[in-house]
Amino acid sequence: MLIAPVGILAGVAAAIPASAAPPPAAATCAACHGENGGGGGGGTFPRLAGQLAAYLARQLHDFKSGARANRIMQPLAAGLSDDQITALAQYYSRAQAPYPSRQKVNPATLAHGESLVRLGKWSAEVPACATCHGPKLAGLAPDFPMLAGQYADYIAGQINAFRRGGRRSDPLNLMQHVARGLDDADVKAVAAYLAWLRPGGDNQVPKVKVASPAARRVAAKGFQPPPESAIPGGPDGEMIRFGEQVFTDTGHYAKAYTGNVLNCSNCHLDRGRLANSAPMWAAFGRYPRYRKKNDKVNTLADRIQGCFVFSMNGKPPPADSKVMVALESYFHWLATGVPVNTDPPGTGYPDVPKPARAPDPARGAQVFKTHCALCHGADGQGRTSAGAVVFPPLWGPQSFNWGAGMHRIPTAAAFIKANMPLGLGGTLTDQQAWDVAAFVDHHPRPQDPRFTGSVKETKQKYHQHMGYYGQVPSTPTKKEITPP
Amino acid sequence: MLIAPVGILAGVAAAIPASAAPPPAAATCAACHGENGGGGGGGTFPRLAGQLAAYLARQLHDFKSGARANRIMQPLAAGLSDDQITALAQYYSRAQAPYPSRQKVNPATLAHGESLVRLGKWSAEVPACATCHGPKLAGLAPDFPMLAGQYADYIAGQINAFRRGGRRSDPLNLMQHVARGLDDADVKAVAAYLAWLRPGGDNQVPKVKVASPAARRVAAKGFQPPPESAIPGGPDGEMIRFGEQVFTDTGHYAKAYTGNVLNCSNCHLDRGRLANSAPMWAAFGRYPRYRKKNDKVNTLADRIQGCFVFSMNGKPPPADSKVMVALESYFHWLATGVPVNTDPPGTGYPDVPKPARAPDPARGAQVFKTHCALCHGADGQGRTSAGAVVFPPLWGPQSFNWGAGMHRIPTAAAFIKANMPLGLGGTLTDQQAWDVAAFVDHHPRPQDPRFTGSVKETKQKYHQHMGYYGQVPSTPTKKEITPP
Repeated sequence: MLIAPVGILAGVAAAIPASAAPPPAAATCAACHGENGGGGGGGTFPRLAGQLAAYLARQLHDFKSGARANRIMQPLAAGLSDDQITALAQYYSRAQAPYPSRQKVNPATLAHGESLVRLGKWSAEVPACATCHGPKLAGLAPDFPMLAGQYADYIAGQINAFRRGGRRSDPLNLMQHVARGLDDADVKAVAAYLAWLRPGGDNQVPKVKVASPAARRVAAKGFQPPPESAIPGGPDGEMIRFGEQVFTDTGHYAKAYTGNVLNCSNCHLDRGRLANSAPMWAAFGRYPRYRKKNDKVNTLADRIQGCFVFSMNGKPPPADSKVMVALESYFHWLATGVPVNTDPPGTGYPDVPKPARAPDPARGAQVFKTHCALCHGADGQGRTSAGAVVFPPLWGPQSFNWGAGMHRIPTAAAFIKANMPLGLGGTLTDQQAWDVAAFVDHHPRPQDPRFTGSVKETKQKYHQHMGYYGQVPSTPTKKEITPP
Repeated sequence: MLIAPVGILAGVAAAIPASAAPPPAAATCAACHGENGGGGGGGTFPRLAGQLAAYLARQLHDFKSGARANRIMQPLAAGLSDDQITALAQYYSRAQAPYPSRQKVNPATLAHGESLVRLGKWSAEVPACATCHGPKLAGLAPDFPMLAGQYADYIAGQINAFRRGGRRSDPLNLMQHVARGLDDADVKAVAAYLAWLRPGGDNQVPKVKVASPAARRVAAKGFQPPPESAIPGGPDGEMIRFGEQVFTDTGHYAKAYTGNVLNCSNCHLDRGRLANSAPMWAAFGRYPRYRKKNDKVNTLADRIQGCFVFSMNGKPPPADSKVMVALESYFHWLATGVPVNTDPPGTGYPDVPKPARAPDPARGAQVFKTHCALCHGADGQGRTSAGAVVFPPLWGPQSFNWGAGMHRIPTAAAFIKANMPLGLGGTLTDQQAWDVAAFVDHHPRPQDPRFTGSVKETKQKYHQHMGYYGQVPSTPTKKEITPP
């Protein structure tokens, strides 16, 4: 318990004159509240200096009428005329009195008090003090007094009076209701913080280390996105279905934004549903999120745009384009039930342990021939059937460009290990996955669209990853998309 | 069990000539596979017509070598030279044979088959058939045969042979692996669907009503957003904090986009955290979602822009503006743990039951005077303290405009009933909430920015809600924001 009474006025109080001569009746007040209204008795007698005149006048009237019960103030106020009340209220509102030195307060108490004063305790229907008394706690006439710099003991006493029914003249019984939402520790903290404030001063409370709450990650192990049959009707369903079409036939439905023959579903298997294949149900709730790649907080739209620019070697669909809204709608629907801002099991591609031997394109070539060429072709250029691309090209003008995530060997290895060969995910050894990733990434592909004119500079700026950035020739991008 | 053998060739088969004269060896084949390779024996003998030549040739070679075991085909293929194999493969790939009539299949079986063929069964590592055999199931030479229109019994037999190890010549053992992921019902459905397909025909399966899965809403009763102390460090945390600043001091931090003195937190209490006060943790996971208000699927950015245009009587922050990214980041963080695409308890403002008496502004005026004027002022223009708006103006040039949700009496009543007077939410009667909502909305406020020139037309187009749209004068919008 580090809170000490802060009511003892510094000795300089009397040296600072009030801005106007006190009215005669003030002599009585000064006995307890100090000559300039600085208060006294360690907070038994509140600070009046600087308080709102209308509030002071109302309180004196309430004391006089008995609406506000107080054994000392009632008889004193009873002897005051309306004019005297006005004069006293005016005087003290303009009076200047120094504030006592700040007392040492437990930083955790101060932080709790600041939180209650600035943020409230809404779980108990307690709005922030600052909501009504103003952001500077300077009050709002005539009902909401200035609180900043008031004595802690006085504030605590008044809040407790509101809590227990000893003070009832508050409009709408608002403070009585609010005060009942505070417990003893709250009252102590609020009072300490308000007393600690200095109008016009530096009111930054010391930083407190608060133990992080238990991580809120909700396990979504085995999460299954809703089945196709659960797509809703109406405009939402139409947009979701269109999003799925864009996702699986990107070159057709998002033609304006693609620069190669890849589909979103080439890297996000099972139409973005498969765990450990960067499923979209896991991606939706992760954004906005900071990405080092572009050194900013990315919205989901930013993230999707990145896919189009690098993986699709195309152009970013605007955030308000139908393609973008449709993709977001599809992801949103897939994510039904996934807790926001968590990384549920199955997110992204699982990292593959660092291999015993450095990834080697030559060894990877053998892996490719045995396990990959069946579908992607010996030349890695993929396959078409009835005019449609069935297996995607892995390098060359119709594949992802130098700026794509798949051009990072660790990313490619992770994708391959978990998912390739298609339907046989997990069957390659870690070393095979690394080697074949190196092999794939060791081929020419379209230039990084962020190319600054210098490979070295571009790599330095954007692609400091394990890979062959700039070590193999770039291929010209085919503007006309024709199946390979 | 509605699947019937579909192998009986229609009688017209022989009438359609193959596109080229059959090679001599074809006479042997024709005995079982039909003269034009249409197949026979109810699927005992597969259709060859139109199959990929390279696939046919490979199978004949595999029969010859024994790689593909078959009691009938092995001795026959053993007698064929390489040239004969090539000639037969070429001939049958070009041969034309009519397809048998489609057999009646249980629509649920067909739908299940379509789902497996088009979407796969990834939970058992089964990619979609269409992934390798092409979107038209027309095959991809030499390893992935054409499947469309093949006999169901033949397909089922082959899948089962892959499942049980009777057929092993598939590259990478891929089909053996895939087939083991299918159960009997899957095999039956896949076979039925593939047999049902007609190259170039209408392959739309009949619509099937599939029972909706149990609603995935995860109760978030009593959900509490994370405490301030849990805001992460780094750029994410900076953005979240800025978002909170924009939310609570909108006129300052989003000055360019506001046209009045309201803050987001005026309608979304406790900085967007309070249940039943349209909390942002409940809003985040709801979008994209269709809104009748603008007749489109709205992203979260669209929704926020609507607030700025109507409630803030300002301009929409662009989707990629810092203000927008910050607000989305703040909402995203608040929503940590809330299931996506659900309406957790506390979402929005709870509807207030229709009142016994029609909402009456005159009665509402009394409610206002007693319960609201304390904070919002007798003139409804709100209050300032130390230069900052503390209580928002409820009408007039500095308040929300005719297009805002709060200008709908039911919305205003819902907000008021649950949340007003501040700290005393739920204390007004339903009738009082409706009456005072009518009173508030019965005052002049800025014009709807969608104003077409005719109040009647604008109302008809955009605001067919319970309220006083166009029934009271509009106030000019103050372009200069000065506290009231």
